[in-house]
Amino acid sequence: MKAFMDKDFLLSTETAKELYHNHAAKMPVIDYHCHISPAEIYEDHKFKNITEAWLGGDHYKWRAIRAMGAPEELVTGNGDDKEKFKAFAKMLESAIGNPLYPWTHLELQRYFGYYGALNEETADEVWTLCNEKLKTADFSVRRLIERSGVEVICSTDDPADSLEYHKRIREDKSFQVKVLPAWRPDKAMNINAEGFGAYIEKLSEVSGVKITDFESLCKALSVRMDFFDEMGCRASDHSLSGMFFKPADQTVIDGILKNAMNGKAASDEEVMQYHTELLRYLGREYARRDWVMQLHMSVLRNTNTRAFRELGADTGYDCIASAGDPRPLTEFLNDFEKDGLLPKTILYSLNPNDNTAIDSVIGCFQGPGVKMKIQHGAAWWFNDTEMGMRDQLKSLASCSLLGGFIGMLTDSRSFLSYTRHEYFRRILCDVIGEYVERGEYPKDMKVLGKMVEDISYNNCKAYFGF
Amino acid sequence: MKAFMDKDFLLSTETAKELYHNHAAKMPVIDYHCHISPAEIYEDHKFKNITEAWLGGDHYKWRAIRAMGAPEELVTGNGDDKEKFKAFAKMLESAIGNPLYPWTHLELQRYFGYYGALNEETADEVWTLCNEKLKTADFSVRRLIERSGVEVICSTDDPADSLEYHKRIREDKSFQVKVLPAWRPDKAMNINAEGFGAYIEKLSEVSGVKITDFESLCKALSVRMDFFDEMGCRASDHSLSGMFFKPADQTVIDGILKNAMNGKAASDEEVMQYHTELLRYLGREYARRDWVMQLHMSVLRNTNTRAFRELGADTGYDCIASAGDPRPLTEFLNDFEKDGLLPKTILYSLNPNDNTAIDSVIGCFQGPGVKMKIQHGAAWWFNDTEMGMRDQLKSLASCSLLGGFIGMLTDSRSFLSYTRHEYFRRILCDVIGEYVERGEYPKDMKVLGKMVEDISYNNCKAYFGF
Amino acid sequence: MKAFMDKDFLLSTETAKELYHNHAAKMPVIDYHCHISPAEIYEDHKFKNITEAWLGGDHYKWRAIRAMGAPEELVTGNGDDKEKFKAFAKMLESAIGNPLYPWTHLELQRYFGYYGALNEETADEVWTLCNEKLKTADFSVRRLIERSGVEVICSTDDPADSLEYHKRIREDKSFQVKVLPAWRPDKAMNINAEGFGAYIEKLSEVSGVKITDFESLCKALSVRMDFFDEMGCRASDHSLSGMFFKPADQTVIDGILKNAMNGKAASDEEVMQYHTELLRYLGREYARRDWVMQLHMSVLRNTNTRAFRELGADTGYDCIASAGDPRPLTEFLNDFEKDGLLPKTILYSLNPNDNTAIDSVIGCFQGPGVKMKIQHGAAWWFNDTEMGMRDQLKSLASCSLLGGFIGMLTDSRSFLSYTRHEYFRRILCDVIGEYVERGEYPKDMKVLGKMVEDISYNNCKAYFGF
Repeated sequence: MKAFMDKDFLLSTETAKELYHNHAAKMPVIDYHCHISPAEIYEDHKFKNITEAWLGGDHYKWRAIRAMGAPEELVTGNGDDKEKFKAFAKMLESAIGNPLYPWTHLELQRYFGYYGALNEETADEVWTLCNEKLKTADFSVRRLIERSGVEVICSTDDPADSLEYHKRIREDKSFQVKVLPAWRPDKAMNINAEGFGAYIEKLSEVSGVKITDFESLCKALSVRMDFFDEMGCRASDHSLSGMFFKPADQTVIDGILKNAMNGKAASDEEVMQYHTELLRYLGREYARRDWVMQLHMSVLRNTNTRAFRELGADTGYDCIASAGDPRPLTEFLNDFEKDGLLPKTILYSLNPNDNTAIDSVIGCFQGPGVKMKIQHGAAWWFNDTEMGMRDQLKSLASCSLLGGFIGMLTDSRSFLSYTRHEYFRRILCDVIGEYVERGEYPKDMKVLGKMVEDISYNNCKAYFGF
Repeated sequence: MKAFMDKDFLLSTETAKELYHNHAAKMPVIDYHCHISPAEIYEDHKFKNITEAWLGGDHYKWRAIRAMGAPEELVTGNGDDKEKFKAFAKMLESAIGNPLYPWTHLELQRYFGYYGALNEETADEVWTLCNEKLKTADFSVRRLIERSGVEVICSTDDPADSLEYHKRIREDKSFQVKVLPAWRPDKAMNINAEGFGAYIEKLSEVSGVKITDFESLCKALSVRMDFFDEMGCRASDHSLSGMFFKPADQTVIDGILKNAMNGKAASDEEVMQYHTELLRYLGREYARRDWVMQLHMSVLRNTNTRAFRELGADTGYDCIASAGDPRPLTEFLNDFEKDGLLPKTILYSLNPNDNTAIDSVIGCFQGPGVKMKIQHGAAWWFNDTEMGMRDQLKSLASCSLLGGFIGMLTDSRSFLSYTRHEYFRRILCDVIGEYVERGEYPKDMKVLGKMVEDISYNNCKAYFGF
Repeated sequence: MKAFMDKDFLLSTETAKELYHNHAAKMPVIDYHCHISPAEIYEDHKFKNITEAWLGGDHYKWRAIRAMGAPEELVTGNGDDKEKFKAFAKMLESAIGNPLYPWTHLELQRYFGYYGALNEETADEVWTLCNEKLKTADFSVRRLIERSGVEVICSTDDPADSLEYHKRIREDKSFQVKVLPAWRPDKAMNINAEGFGAYIEKLSEVSGVKITDFESLCKALSVRMDFFDEMGCRASDHSLSGMFFKPADQTVIDGILKNAMNGKAASDEEVMQYHTELLRYLGREYARRDWVMQLHMSVLRNTNTRAFRELGADTGYDCIASAGDPRPLTEFLNDFEKDGLLPKTILYSLNPNDNTAIDSVIGCFQGPGVKMKIQHGAAWWFNDTEMGMRDQLKSLASCSLLGGFIGMLTDSRSFLSYTRHEYFRRILCDVIGEYVERGEYPKDMKVLGKMVEDISYNNCKAYFGF
């Protein structure tokens, strides 16, 4: 039996231990997709207490506390911070097998030096310990990033964003970590969202291109892509409920866009046509700029109307959508490929049933000159668990080339979650170690060590060109 | 190597053994969903031989015997009982990995004291042994229930049922086990079934409410729900081929209902509208009575026309339907939630691909005041296997809170199948033991022991309010 | 830790080792579905080098080499054979967990006596060694087959094929392996394919039945089925993108067929109607001849237009289609069953999410007189991996009768891939060994040994009637 989360946590074989300690652990972190605030980095924010740091914006934790039957007051409401922390600590006891358990304890170990278990009984002790440490210099946002061995962070940014904080961070020579923007044009995609018209006006203004139709919208976005590119952007990102491919001619799209600018809602069919055509345009632009296209698929958002009314989006009421039909996804990728304008692409699905299908799809669009040009992204959100990661890694290995994988990202809003890279690397080393110890691959530590270093860092660095 | 089904069966770690023997094994059984006959309990039925007890109504076993190529005569036909038993015994040899194998041997061990393997060679010996024991007092239905440590049984009952046997059992002070009715209005749901009109007349009569339209149907059902509630009912149950959400206004539903009462078939669309509206009404009534709503989804029934003609329903010709689209399920739950009338709900899907999606859906509707108000039900029917149970438990743990799970039910027609609770508890302890022995959760036996006791018994008792 | 691919490769328990070495290893091979060329067998082809033998027609390997970023020149193009081999060897280093890794090394061990690892460093040595051996008599196609312990091979043949090489092989008394045709009427199915009209003319000519409508098409096919039957055919095969059941009356089908013969494309609906009716006819004919019907489902072909234009079909651009809805599959099987004309059927799906659903479907159509009349075929193509095979075997065991399984086939175009039977048998023995060593089935080596021999060989022999 292994001790609770000791130095060999998750490493069940000697090969895994060697791979992790001698190779994976020493590699820097590239966090190529996350949702942190560049302003908080620039301002080197400090947290008033562990409740702000952990429970301020983390809907994973909110859902879990609600499942215990806690009142919303102790989740996102006006409850006392210490009481909220205690509700969280109490919930953890029931969370065996949930990633919140190891995530929380990895953060306690690596950042706070606490090696016990957080539960109802120890909540007071941990509350005091963490809050004292959070007051010290080592716990400012910048120091947390530096202490985590981070080299590059890609935030998630709107095309109309001034990227002011990215600029300031870059100019501040006291902070060496690259904080790069990434392009996420949700607001240009979501034509049925409230405020779409106002957003288009803002985009016109910022880009200097008066947007009146689809062509001028594309032109405006192109201007902004040039700006993002100058600012070091290497990646785009799109969130899609499912995959679809519904081309339409420009007159149709112009009509849909103009209606939307006038506040007239588009039908489901029109939304798919508009998304298809906007993505067809953008994907080609990404290819021209050698940006990576990220597609986050199969999410069903804001399912609980009462909660959405009271708390808004991203508060813990999203779930997994149906497994995707691979056909429209292949049609979408083929549309770029047949013109020789398929960008490097990372496919993420929230539905774990898509794993093997995605691994078979990426194999149809690999191209010359780039190692694993089309990637199956790391297990994500509800799958960002030991089980989900193992499944994604083993499916990728079985159906594609694990050695070419670009590895982990946090997708997080927290500055304490870089330990998820450690969590991933331990699981990666364990999966590889299992293949080796079962005699399925030779124990050549030079080859294996390089493979682990590549998946932890080198592949990603080369793929994005950081 | 472990010995064949010894005391540590399925328990692969020391932690698992301690958890099972010191905690799980001693907990009483609450069988909150099954299909046993209350009349047989009241009458304290005795079985004429092991063929009646095991093969009299068990379509799991019938399918397996048919797969061996046996003639129907030796399955449900007029074959000799001993020959039928031998066909079953012979089949078992091929059934490695099938739950019929451990289920059969757990029953042989726990009820009959036989620790060998049943196969073609031992069939005679087992036949004689079992039949002798079945003649003894310890093998009447009531004694089997008592010997199994059962505290509560919820049967499955039609709204028009008089619940006469439930009453008699309650009044018989010589039998202490609670046998409660559970509400399953299949006959009110299935408007296209033969005899729907006659059923509505019966329901009118029993409820004292003349049913002429949807409103009076609801009124009649409400009267019966009050009666079931008085009789101790705490749960409802619905079987659905898939999930859908198709609201319609009352005029439409009245039209559909009246046609059905006159024997005019409803279209697929109309059936979905009728089911949606009836469930919208019933779910709110369940919430008002604090009943639990159980939804059994994704079943495709009576696929083999020849067999259906010859043998009728529930004879072993059902299979798994498509994985459900989570969207209509969320719309359905949201419909109650936005009115503050979402009952406690247990979601079961026959398609194992739904596991993670369901675990993500339940997290969107957890509410204050109840621990794990929305539950992902135990692995069911074709998934009621070691593999299926492990998958359900690990998915639930990864995506929700395993500690809040209400655990196992038999869903069985047999009085010998309470050992399935033992089977489940062993797997549960093994899954928890694995997390602990891999260092993912501290080995705090007080916390872990309580967790196992809760999932085996306490959570369920509190959830239903038994 | 186990040594790299030693004699106990994949066998993790003592039971597995005994089962493999004492039972599975000694059984002959029946390769009941593959794509090898009978002409190459008759002509006893020899390979000019290892690149021809391994990379001449293997799209599994092509995909993997492309994923490394290699130019097409080194894949299917005019590159130097040794450079192509080196690109393959280099790719293998990244292929940990991919079946190409063990497949390649099993072939190196069993056929070439090379026990090292193939990688960039050893590529020269392996190149020289293999090429020298390929020049020797032991490496002709016939010797490779004989050395592999093969007793029966079923090729995949068009109804209009003369089966000339099958005849010649049968007449050549110097070669004892049965090489039987199998019926795959793709060209009669694919009414929208270029050349359909010409094919129908050819079929008219070969069968001596002038095809003018659906009835005469069926008659012509029936004549050819009689011929195939005389030639020893025991199996048919169909490749389907998905499962559907869309009956139509004969006038409709006649219209669709006549249009197709005149080069007028059928709509998607019409294609499904035509396929349904042709399969309804053919399946009944298979039942009458006691042929086995194989259905390979859920494939999405030729997804990459650019590659299809340049390289044609079967070049590595296919992927997994959506998981099937079980309902049309049950309607299809039921259509035969209700007339008492359901042939023995093997269901294969390329989507691993279909596993449990298929295992539940087959249980609805098992019939008297045949052991496991409806089979869930061995894990296939993208699932022909250790993970995929384990999943298929454990799902089959859980939901059906593993002891009745007909086991492995290569589905290969290569004469070096018979080691995949070894790969399968090792995994089979390991899965069975796990059940036994966990105490879930008695360690009765007589019963278990027979089970392994049956699944490796006897079940298949009896099922097809070879």
